[in-house]
Amino acid sequence: MKQTGEDALVARLRRSLRGRRPGVVAGIGDDCAAVEGPGRGLLLLKTDCVVEGRHFAPDDAAPAVGWKAACRAVSDLAACGGTPAHALVTCVVRPGQTKRWLDGVYRGLAKAGREFGFDVVGGELSRTDGPAVISVAMTGTVARRDFVRRSGGRPGDVLFVTGVLGGSLSSGWHLRFRPRLGEARWLVANFRVRAMMDVSDGLASDLPRLARAGRTGFVLDPASLPRRRGSTVAQALGDGEDFELLFAVAPRDADRLEKAWRKRWPEVRLTRIGHLAGAGTHEGLGRARGYDHFA
Amino acid sequence: MKQTGEDALVARLRRSLRGRRPGVVAGIGDDCAAVEGPGRGLLLLKTDCVVEGRHFAPDDAAPAVGWKAACRAVSDLAACGGTPAHALVTCVVRPGQTKRWLDGVYRGLAKAGREFGFDVVGGELSRTDGPAVISVAMTGTVARRDFVRRSGGRPGDVLFVTGVLGGSLSSGWHLRFRPRLGEARWLVANFRVRAMMDVSDGLASDLPRLARAGRTGFVLDPASLPRRRGSTVAQALGDGEDFELLFAVAPRDADRLEKAWRKRWPEVRLTRIGHLAGAGTHEGLGRARGYDHFA
Repeated sequence: MKQTGEDALVARLRRSLRGRRPGVVAGIGDDCAAVEGPGRGLLLLKTDCVVEGRHFAPDDAAPAVGWKAACRAVSDLAACGGTPAHALVTCVVRPGQTKRWLDGVYRGLAKAGREFGFDVVGGELSRTDGPAVISVAMTGTVARRDFVRRSGGRPGDVLFVTGVLGGSLSSGWHLRFRPRLGEARWLVANFRVRAMMDVSDGLASDLPRLARAGRTGFVLDPASLPRRRGSTVAQALGDGEDFELLFAVAPRDADRLEKAWRKRWPEVRLTRIGHLAGAGTHEGLGRARGYDHFA
Repeated sequence: MKQTGEDALVARLRRSLRGRRPGVVAGIGDDCAAVEGPGRGLLLLKTDCVVEGRHFAPDDAAPAVGWKAACRAVSDLAACGGTPAHALVTCVVRPGQTKRWLDGVYRGLAKAGREFGFDVVGGELSRTDGPAVISVAMTGTVARRDFVRRSGGRPGDVLFVTGVLGGSLSSGWHLRFRPRLGEARWLVANFRVRAMMDVSDGLASDLPRLARAGRTGFVLDPASLPRRRGSTVAQALGDGEDFELLFAVAPRDADRLEKAWRKRWPEVRLTRIGHLAGAGTHEGLGRARGYDHFA
């Protein structure tokens, strides 16, 4: 499976920065880094940024921008089975962005903190002459037995995705989505989730990443894809910013999971979209491509 | 003491984000956030960013940029008495910055990691059309008894500063400085340091912050300031990017500290620059001002 620009860069980075400290359980290439805490659980670390003109528009409401900046990181922690704890926020603002705008961003961040249980405990303000950048660093915790990586999938495992895909930017979903924190916590508490990640760059980018992490391939059924109203299959595969969960469970668990899900999360769609396969197989994507920052 | 633009913004931020989680020992307004770890010590959290055209020039050597980005955060952890553990690095690059440039940045980050004992365990790559931004989020640890805040100073405490001040940008020091990690660890292990911070925005900005945090004033002796070769007093006060330690100890400890310092750190200057005073007193700054991102 060919690695795209960003993935190749991340792979190089991983080699060049190979850790020397003991206790790094997961590092570069997973949704979060996980390190041994001084206690029983793992400390999760995640950083995520939004760039004006790419992840939000200059005239988007400031609280929505703050909400999104925080929720992207929450989504990654959720995808590892974890719970957020503390956040540090770096705001690099440009001329013309007022204190009122910045206040709005912080209101959005604080609202996300109340909803998802983390505190903003610090950060930094700086200036740029170019597009604004908001970077959120978040810590989280996870019990060792609940920690899920991208890499645990095996050929035959059933692939699920939550919610609907596609059209996130055009519909405004990307500014108001709720990370699947409750759903993910419920999943890891009740099922053996073998591999999980959040879909942020589009399924066409992220599914190959999940497969590659576990040295498997995949068979995707494009017709099965849950699409946002008005989105095509190509958009569902390539648009990105969905912030839904993509995960794999053993075939024997799939039916029980679907049944329990409908009962526990009646308002959230859960869709079987295919299965993992041998390393050489990658079916169903056609020529679709997700978003690659460095393609 | 009038709060400048950035400080006023930080104060507002602190109020708006007042924490709800238990165990936040220090938050917005200190050099680092400190939260109760699951073990005995404190977990320190710090984020710091460098912006192209402000903190580094487009033609600065990439490894030096990575080094600086990491060492700024190490300097803050040191100023709290802590030791760095893990780092997450967000690189937002612009068109024209090659993978080779990025590789260079990571080499600089990795070198700092080897020197100061932290691992880069994750991060993110993104793109901007404006100046590049490199944001480093770093965790650290500190024993509870070694943790130093900005706020512990009392009137009469003697003020010290390490190294020399001024001319950091023009001399290139800002790209090659070594954070005073060993010195700070030695200080907190051997002396009761009442208040400490690193001087990053210039003493004229940072000394009032240290004083304000402890609800004290200060008397600075400008003639005593240790200046980089070629720097004026005004530059030593206002240039910023010194990354030296500014700290306060009780008068009874000052002589013993100076003696022990000369023995342990013969190559690093340590200078008495004045003392803390009652809250109304702020002498010695004249009209000097340090750097304020939001003035």
